[in-house]
Amino acid sequence: MTGTRRGRTRVQPLRTAAPTRRGVRPAIALDALDGHLGYFIRRVQVWVFQDFIRTLAQIDISPAQFSVLVVISANPGLSQAELATTLGIERARLARLLHRLQRRGLIQRLESSDDRRRHALQLTSQGRTLLTRAKALAARHERQLIGKLGAERHRTLLQTLRDF
Amino acid sequence: MTGTRRGRTRVQPLRTAAPTRRGVRPAIALDALDGHLGYFIRRVQVWVFQDFIRTLAQIDISPAQFSVLVVISANPGLSQAELATTLGIERARLARLLHRLQRRGLIQRLESSDDRRRHALQLTSQGRTLLTRAKALAARHERQLIGKLGAERHRTLLQTLRDF
Repeated sequence: MTGTRRGRTRVQPLRTAAPTRRGVRPAIALDALDGHLGYFIRRVQVWVFQDFIRTLAQIDISPAQFSVLVVISANPGLSQAELATTLGIERARLARLLHRLQRRGLIQRLESSDDRRRHALQLTSQGRTLLTRAKALAARHERQLIGKLGAERHRTLLQTLRDF
Repeated sequence: MTGTRRGRTRVQPLRTAAPTRRGVRPAIALDALDGHLGYFIRRVQVWVFQDFIRTLAQIDISPAQFSVLVVISANPGLSQAELATTLGIERARLARLLHRLQRRGLIQRLESSDDRRRHALQLTSQGRTLLTRAKALAARHERQLIGKLGAERHRTLLQTLRDF
């Protein structure tokens, strides 16, 4: 964070920003932003999500929907509250997300006499079939990411962010 | 990506997820998510943005608003198109963002005879005063982040993400 215009930083040509203008963009000062992790983490997160969305477009599954399907599948009978806590998704947003997945016939909510397990979630047969395809496409997305970052930087980033 | 339930991963207690339940959460399998950089980058990005928002709450400036004010201030006369390209913000979203900042009296758009510079953006005097406070609070947020990550990991992450 220089706080002055002396430390001009050439804007990184993130591919999503302006693919048609690469190489002709003038140097624009990022100033204080250049010292803020949040600025760069957001830009990379947007890039990664856009690549994920493109790669899974043929089955119309968003990153949030994918994470929900994966965790329900791996933890049958999970409650909505546990799912929200695990993924750090706000309760109201998760409710909308689950409603859409249920309408698409991918998940179902079971009634249960056990209070803690009320509205226990599980995938339908159709949901399991779709998740198999989703995992294969998500793995392709991850290979694209490794191709962009290099295996070493991908591993370092994954480790550092996982331990955050 | 294990694809099975054997590789159970204890969910990282990211502080935003459920501060009141830390330590009592059962191990829930993340399954395929554990190999996806996008999952962890999104969780960390949300944590960082929440800390930023909390720290700047007293002046009601969001991360996106901060980035816009910083870049306009460091590049007077920048056009809306250049700003969108620099920050990788979608044009319609940027237009709404600028509209709100203008209504708060923080920025103004100049008419100009030069086509390229039409609607050139600059901060008002009030905008410059607010940005000084915003930069000080954002620096505090970054110190909090360094405190959480450690200076070494903060530097590594910043470098890796900046070069993405």
